[in-house]
Amino acid sequence: MKIAVDAMGGDFAPAEVVKGAVLACRELQAEVILVGDERKINELLKNQPISGLKLEIQNATEVIEMGEHPAHAVKKKKDSSLVVANRLVKDGVAAAVISAGNTGAAMSASLLTLGRIKGINRPAIASPMPTSKGVSVLLDAGANADCDPENLAQFALMGSIYAAQVFGFSTPRVGLLSIGEEETKGNKLTVEAYQLLKQSGLNFIGNIEGRDVHHGQCDVIVCDGFVGNIVLKLSEGLAGALFGQIKNALTENLVTTVGALLVKGAFKSLKGRMDYTEYGGAPLLGLNGISMISHGSSNAKAIKNAIRAAIKAVDEDVVGKIAASLKNSSSQREASS
Amino acid sequence: MKIAVDAMGGDFAPAEVVKGAVLACRELQAEVILVGDERKINELLKNQPISGLKLEIQNATEVIEMGEHPAHAVKKKKDSSLVVANRLVKDGVAAAVISAGNTGAAMSASLLTLGRIKGINRPAIASPMPTSKGVSVLLDAGANADCDPENLAQFALMGSIYAAQVFGFSTPRVGLLSIGEEETKGNKLTVEAYQLLKQSGLNFIGNIEGRDVHHGQCDVIVCDGFVGNIVLKLSEGLAGALFGQIKNALTENLVTTVGALLVKGAFKSLKGRMDYTEYGGAPLLGLNGISMISHGSSNAKAIKNAIRAAIKAVDEDVVGKIAASLKNSSSQREASS
Repeated sequence: MKIAVDAMGGDFAPAEVVKGAVLACRELQAEVILVGDERKINELLKNQPISGLKLEIQNATEVIEMGEHPAHAVKKKKDSSLVVANRLVKDGVAAAVISAGNTGAAMSASLLTLGRIKGINRPAIASPMPTSKGVSVLLDAGANADCDPENLAQFALMGSIYAAQVFGFSTPRVGLLSIGEEETKGNKLTVEAYQLLKQSGLNFIGNIEGRDVHHGQCDVIVCDGFVGNIVLKLSEGLAGALFGQIKNALTENLVTTVGALLVKGAFKSLKGRMDYTEYGGAPLLGLNGISMISHGSSNAKAIKNAIRAAIKAVDEDVVGKIAASLKNSSSQREASS
Repeated sequence: MKIAVDAMGGDFAPAEVVKGAVLACRELQAEVILVGDERKINELLKNQPISGLKLEIQNATEVIEMGEHPAHAVKKKKDSSLVVANRLVKDGVAAAVISAGNTGAAMSASLLTLGRIKGINRPAIASPMPTSKGVSVLLDAGANADCDPENLAQFALMGSIYAAQVFGFSTPRVGLLSIGEEETKGNKLTVEAYQLLKQSGLNFIGNIEGRDVHHGQCDVIVCDGFVGNIVLKLSEGLAGALFGQIKNALTENLVTTVGALLVKGAFKSLKGRMDYTEYGGAPLLGLNGISMISHGSSNAKAIKNAIRAAIKAVDEDVVGKIAASLKNSSSQREASS
């Protein structure tokens, strides 16, 4: 199985992306196609011991920049690294695609190139969220700013399959992010979605609140893409602000600086547990293919871990399982009506 | 000016509430009416030196519990501490009311008893949010799960007046919480609200994202009550989880424990800056009177600070200024049409 990696996407592309691809080939025995400016990629590979690795290059002459309008850029730049990487999946050359570039463009390219699974109304970004107990999957993390209750029910289904297959949760607990525990609490969207989730056959544990998100109360957190994106960015921002303030507080004077040296290791392990790069990318679920969207600031480790997650998603046939479960639920609906 | 305090509301009521009221009388020369079970309040006051303080008791025979249905409880329990405290404001005996009890019931009691300012469609909870630069005011923090763009524009107006009068920001910067900086980014609600805010005459700085909330990029953060409540609880939950994990990490072994002793002071000051009790309560803005809603887990210090904020809001005539600015904007609209 080959994984197509957009070598030109991301704040530290192509250097960190190329490094991450090499790491994945070496450590995970992955097969990777680096897509982008052949000359630049070869230049970067010069300094790496890559003999024996299953690493290919697919040239692409254009790059979609961060500021570009997603849909326009994807339609215009047919030979961009992002579009070419997606086409490799569409054509069956690669099994999955990964990009750390312009998120909107990555969604747009995958949606246009791979297409939706039959029965899925809206694909969703399923983002791993570090919690005090491990990791949860939050979706939608930003693909759909406005959703209807049916969308949320489909997110729950897709998230459950992903959490089970890729993170190994046996029957993932699904929580609906709302503002009160009772089923009547929330906004119009969540109150209606609650009823659909109750009948979904999933392991639905009810509403969870903002304070529960980081405590690992459930394995799949369902919300619309507006709320999900705010939750994701707020968590990153607050953790960053706190760690920054801690750093300042610890170097205030000589006593705290000595203390800081002694507690350094403990902090490093804590920061590691909160580290988004541990989990690599977030898949755009609901498409006819695996498309992983990585953080713009991805380093080599994040790219390697995104490749690992993509391989796992392909191995476990996440796409096929989503399609099958939709067929089952629609045939059940037909049988009962 | 007398402040009516619901002595029976809150996780640590009446003990901490009574203590907080005494602190406010002593340190701020406040005049407080403690509303609730006379016998219990007197019992608690026995152990406090209160001679010379302007502290009264208003007996109330009922208590609204945390689990009760807000509107039902308020209508049924006419002699509850919460309803009686609100009535003192309505009757002109007290200038403001404070409760740390059932939030829904506190909103309901104030809305029913005090009524809305003419022209305000929906009152909103304006919650202080600690940031790395100080404090911002976030509204709505949970009073309205579903909002329209006009509601958000009114929240911005009320929040600006509160931030200016109570927190002393000269021309408060207003940010609209969304999922992208450009004015076309967001959900339907925020994209429409953006246009209203642009024309509002307020110091509108545009959209802010989740990652900006805790960095003090603006003084007033506007969002619907569903998003606001999640932001508030997520922030509390994440900060709590991080501090908990830090504590664990610091006592892992002898070296880190020694280090922890050395950095203890630095942490305490950091936790202080993130401490919600510093700012006391969150006013329900848009009513004909000042009603402060305090955190359920309020201690004496939080109650004292809520009383301080209430006095400031009355002194600065926040209610009158909101009413006046609505009159101005409606007469401007009439003049221009």
